[in-house]
Amino acid sequence: MAGRFWWLVEKQFDNLFRLRVRVWAMKIKVAVLGATGMVGQKFIQLLADHPWFEISALAASEKRVGKIYGEEVDWIVSADVPECVRDMEMVPMDPKYVDAELVFSALPSGVAKEVEPKFAESGFAVASNASAYRMAEDVPLVIPEVNPDHLQMIEVQKRRRGWDGFIVTNPNCTTIMLVISLKPLMDLGLKTVRVASMQALSGAGYPGVPSMAIMDNVIPFISGEEDKVEEEPLKLLGKFDGEKVIPAPITVSASCHRVPVIDGHTEAVWVEFDRDVSVDEVVDAFESLKPLDLPTSPEKVIIVRKERDRPQPRLDRDEGNGMSVVVGRIRKDSWGIKYIVMGHNTVRGAAGASILNAELMVKEKILG
Amino acid sequence: MAGRFWWLVEKQFDNLFRLRVRVWAMKIKVAVLGATGMVGQKFIQLLADHPWFEISALAASEKRVGKIYGEEVDWIVSADVPECVRDMEMVPMDPKYVDAELVFSALPSGVAKEVEPKFAESGFAVASNASAYRMAEDVPLVIPEVNPDHLQMIEVQKRRRGWDGFIVTNPNCTTIMLVISLKPLMDLGLKTVRVASMQALSGAGYPGVPSMAIMDNVIPFISGEEDKVEEEPLKLLGKFDGEKVIPAPITVSASCHRVPVIDGHTEAVWVEFDRDVSVDEVVDAFESLKPLDLPTSPEKVIIVRKERDRPQPRLDRDEGNGMSVVVGRIRKDSWGIKYIVMGHNTVRGAAGASILNAELMVKEKILG
Amino acid sequence: MAGRFWWLVEKQFDNLFRLRVRVWAMKIKVAVLGATGMVGQKFIQLLADHPWFEISALAASEKRVGKIYGEEVDWIVSADVPECVRDMEMVPMDPKYVDAELVFSALPSGVAKEVEPKFAESGFAVASNASAYRMAEDVPLVIPEVNPDHLQMIEVQKRRRGWDGFIVTNPNCTTIMLVISLKPLMDLGLKTVRVASMQALSGAGYPGVPSMAIMDNVIPFISGEEDKVEEEPLKLLGKFDGEKVIPAPITVSASCHRVPVIDGHTEAVWVEFDRDVSVDEVVDAFESLKPLDLPTSPEKVIIVRKERDRPQPRLDRDEGNGMSVVVGRIRKDSWGIKYIVMGHNTVRGAAGASILNAELMVKEKILG
Amino acid sequence: MAGRFWWLVEKQFDNLFRLRVRVWAMKIKVAVLGATGMVGQKFIQLLADHPWFEISALAASEKRVGKIYGEEVDWIVSADVPECVRDMEMVPMDPKYVDAELVFSALPSGVAKEVEPKFAESGFAVASNASAYRMAEDVPLVIPEVNPDHLQMIEVQKRRRGWDGFIVTNPNCTTIMLVISLKPLMDLGLKTVRVASMQALSGAGYPGVPSMAIMDNVIPFISGEEDKVEEEPLKLLGKFDGEKVIPAPITVSASCHRVPVIDGHTEAVWVEFDRDVSVDEVVDAFESLKPLDLPTSPEKVIIVRKERDRPQPRLDRDEGNGMSVVVGRIRKDSWGIKYIVMGHNTVRGAAGASILNAELMVKEKILG
Repeated sequence: MAGRFWWLVEKQFDNLFRLRVRVWAMKIKVAVLGATGMVGQKFIQLLADHPWFEISALAASEKRVGKIYGEEVDWIVSADVPECVRDMEMVPMDPKYVDAELVFSALPSGVAKEVEPKFAESGFAVASNASAYRMAEDVPLVIPEVNPDHLQMIEVQKRRRGWDGFIVTNPNCTTIMLVISLKPLMDLGLKTVRVASMQALSGAGYPGVPSMAIMDNVIPFISGEEDKVEEEPLKLLGKFDGEKVIPAPITVSASCHRVPVIDGHTEAVWVEFDRDVSVDEVVDAFESLKPLDLPTSPEKVIIVRKERDRPQPRLDRDEGNGMSVVVGRIRKDSWGIKYIVMGHNTVRGAAGASILNAELMVKEKILG
Repeated sequence: MAGRFWWLVEKQFDNLFRLRVRVWAMKIKVAVLGATGMVGQKFIQLLADHPWFEISALAASEKRVGKIYGEEVDWIVSADVPECVRDMEMVPMDPKYVDAELVFSALPSGVAKEVEPKFAESGFAVASNASAYRMAEDVPLVIPEVNPDHLQMIEVQKRRRGWDGFIVTNPNCTTIMLVISLKPLMDLGLKTVRVASMQALSGAGYPGVPSMAIMDNVIPFISGEEDKVEEEPLKLLGKFDGEKVIPAPITVSASCHRVPVIDGHTEAVWVEFDRDVSVDEVVDAFESLKPLDLPTSPEKVIIVRKERDRPQPRLDRDEGNGMSVVVGRIRKDSWGIKYIVMGHNTVRGAAGASILNAELMVKEKILG
Repeated sequence: MAGRFWWLVEKQFDNLFRLRVRVWAMKIKVAVLGATGMVGQKFIQLLADHPWFEISALAASEKRVGKIYGEEVDWIVSADVPECVRDMEMVPMDPKYVDAELVFSALPSGVAKEVEPKFAESGFAVASNASAYRMAEDVPLVIPEVNPDHLQMIEVQKRRRGWDGFIVTNPNCTTIMLVISLKPLMDLGLKTVRVASMQALSGAGYPGVPSMAIMDNVIPFISGEEDKVEEEPLKLLGKFDGEKVIPAPITVSASCHRVPVIDGHTEAVWVEFDRDVSVDEVVDAFESLKPLDLPTSPEKVIIVRKERDRPQPRLDRDEGNGMSVVVGRIRKDSWGIKYIVMGHNTVRGAAGASILNAELMVKEKILG
Repeated sequence: MAGRFWWLVEKQFDNLFRLRVRVWAMKIKVAVLGATGMVGQKFIQLLADHPWFEISALAASEKRVGKIYGEEVDWIVSADVPECVRDMEMVPMDPKYVDAELVFSALPSGVAKEVEPKFAESGFAVASNASAYRMAEDVPLVIPEVNPDHLQMIEVQKRRRGWDGFIVTNPNCTTIMLVISLKPLMDLGLKTVRVASMQALSGAGYPGVPSMAIMDNVIPFISGEEDKVEEEPLKLLGKFDGEKVIPAPITVSASCHRVPVIDGHTEAVWVEFDRDVSVDEVVDAFESLKPLDLPTSPEKVIIVRKERDRPQPRLDRDEGNGMSVVVGRIRKDSWGIKYIVMGHNTVRGAAGASILNAELMVKEKILG
């Protein structure tokens, strides 16, 4: 059978070709700070086979230094720790032990506050998922498809702080889905936003939420979350004037809730505009948001579902390998438009967001 | 030990006394229409030991007529079908087969539309949980603690339709929690309401939502729900002018979602007023709503929780035997107040709501 | 209506009568060790309205001493901490700070090993749910309906150890359901037991199992569990010869698994006998197990369900207020009989087990 | 950066090469019977990009004939219906409307009984996941890694029935994981098997198990399942004597339970041998089972996990693209060995099993 013959040829050819490519490619060395947590694991999973980056170091808290990653981690995101890091010895979170050009930070905010500046000062590029410096005046808070020009703030940061390196941050996981959907609405005259989130368990890390607390339950509170969702969009959608960001003239009010879902934040959004806006205009706006030509960039940034019961986290969270944001149920009410937006919180909302920022920096020749 | 002695005395005494009471009490005969569904089961559970009502008939769809309830039902709300109905033979949904003064309707809307008028015409009081006649101009849509005076519409209904009996309805399960919380806010100048619901599975009946559809998922759509939540509050909070209800001058916008919770609807609410309103005023208003002296009435209609992470459906849904509504997280935003309200959807939101309406009618001497 | 009149009379009468009973009753003072954990909370819930016992002290680990229970505990078993302990100040786990005749131990095994002997030495009766001393030769391991005579070991224990008080233990939560079902099978010539458990989350305490570990998952391992389930039954079903227990001549093999269920352990059991045994004999044996006349004792110790799909934890775990054990699916295979047994793991399997032991001791005049 | 350059080259090359392969390959046309159900969807998902097969027809029940697959199906296994079948019009389950060499049957047993022989008679090869003909004396029940020689029964079947085509079946989803693990144990002298299953929801199809029935619950019963698990292994592990299968001389006793897991059946297994067998011998036996060189065959048929808490369905079900079976917790007891086996029930246990059988038939030149 011809099918079977070509299948054998293809398998051999693939192996040969990929091998050669791997040998010739010079990748950028990257480290992960906070490698054993939920987001740290997600970083490793997404970087394990990355075409531009290779993991050269895993940094962890003191008690884990010197231990073998594969033996120490409580790996929860797939069957096995990727081979490339399984036997890696963890190093301290100190620039002098880290051999890399770029560090991805999956640290909790308190630790990030101390550690990230040390790396930036020592000349590292820091792509951080932590909230510590997101709202700092000279630190870019970036979503590549939304405000790539904010990366220019890096120069301001280096100048002001006298650092050789720098910190670039991505937003909170709930903010990021919301803002990707708000970006195309800015041109329609967006004024106000109300958002009720139904957030996944992975957003709380590991061990995170006890099963006894969330089975058959909703917890209508997530510490610090509503403040972040109300503040970060103004910076992300604001204008960089060469020195700092002028916040976008919109107001956001958030109500954040935890639901028994593993991955994928679902958000019910109400938006008002300074004029009458139709459902069709909103659909067109969503679909007009362009993807970037980067390895982690999805083919479609926003996928608009027309079914009456979509998006749903379990069905839609892996779209674009977890990097697409899916919207649906776009409808008019007395004051404006309401819709649902959903995205993968540990991919597009965390590790994938930092990696996409890093890829953008490579393309912009800030890195590599 | 004295404790043990009195325990024995108490047990004996209790048994004797209750027995005598049961013998002397003359209860009102009630029937349940649609007895095998989720809400029908809940009616039976709540009526099994009711001090004023006793179940005299169970009516079901044709294919079930003549069958024994305990053998036919797929009983899902507790371990066992209550003894008082276990051996009851189901009768047709036809007034001439039903020996009762009052019928509780747990019918789907389509069937209710046909069946309920037949019973009302034949002189029965119909306390209905179905949506079929809720918005009819001469049918009372009542929550006893909110608009008991709307029961006066019964006279209009009987006059207009020439019926001996009548239909009284209770609202949709999501509406009812919301409106109990809105009632005390009317005096503060309530203007607009936005509500995002996280609704329990029992609200979809049985078999209802497939497990494969909702495990590790959120479904951001419930057929017909948003319309009900946007329309019913205006009637409930409106004024009865002796002939019909003048709708309340408020606007509601709803976004309804199904989450993997067994019982208890959680709702995130944003309200705006025609003046500046403080959190304390809202708390005071919630706590001022008075309970009624009826068997199914809870001690507190609204329970205000001060903890930062309450109400939660699994912990709070059984408050007041499922008849209390629990609010929390009352906070200010740029435009007004936001809060969470939660209640048991098949008790306060369905069967319990109908029974409380019936109890109010007994107290008001419309029944009994 | 007569119904309404008698309802009012009954309500008044009840209140008066109960009040008098409460005043006259002299209850036994009890303390709870390890009061903030999952089992500690369950003890408090079951003791809050107990006719023979009243909580006089709550003992906790050092860091919690002096703190108010209601403010400190992360109460997870119902809406609110019972009023009787809400304002209680926690005391150290030291006999001299505890004013009680009996202490219930909800301690982890390691702590129990140190603390329980101190209380026993100081003259307290210790009813322990911990595993530390279950297999000690002179410590009774008791299920009241199974081996009440093992309480005679208390005298041996006091004599050997020179203690004024003593320790009495109840079995592991998985063992207890199993052994209650095995007890009536002993007379049929029971020889071998194989059991596969599907255990609830509450058995792991709080915070216990992370939601990220168990959602949409089964964990086929529970630390130490299989050993307990294989050893404890031999002691429980053994014969007390006046000095020690001769283990029952049976062999048990267990496979223990965690499933996403809140409360209620389900166990699939295979048993072999030394002769051919019919399903009917097994049913009769199960139904012959007699309840005790104690406050926490259920009307039926074993409930046999005839339906093809029962018992189920969510439907059956609250039978007998969580103290009944429910069996079903009794069927023959090539070697013997197989069946399912299910019970409430934190009630019959933990706190309720200890309390029932204490009640038995009161009845046997060992206490009170 | 070299990495970025080669990434671009690789992307272009991949596209070109694959295109050419696709054009040159002559694939075998296959149809799916029962295309809209859970297993039907899984067939389509696995066949959508298959190197040897291409879907040429989707057959469905009468009421769906003529409808467009993508509009009609309630697609539940991923975000979107694969493009290759989205616009396909469904045809009747009648040989004369089906243009294919091979049909995959995802039919319920009752329908399969009628339909499958019609296709076999008309010359089609039928690879069936239905239970209707599994135990028929002249129908091969095959797992390629276990009993590939049973395919010789096809000749017996064609001869006896006078058919041009034939039926080949794969086992029940619970049987298949079990038997793959039993196969290597046969040489160690396997005698008896007891198995307690914890089965996933997808095994019940769609809509299948109501969420209200299984949330926070275990259902200890699956209709017909235990019989299948007790009978099928004897045929699978039996010897084909040229005319029929001599059943393997082992005895199996099963207890089957449904748990709240989406995909992946977990099974606790006890095995006895005719001699003393060590854990190491069992591990070696498991690891010795050889994979086949077929597109759907996994690299490892059985993966042995050494961790104390594996396999787990959520972590391990996608191993080998859902075609590997994962075992763990291999330990000795008084009588033999106990262990856990887990596999993906709709891939290795259903659609993937049929497809692997078909691939084996291509390799053996029975097809293509």
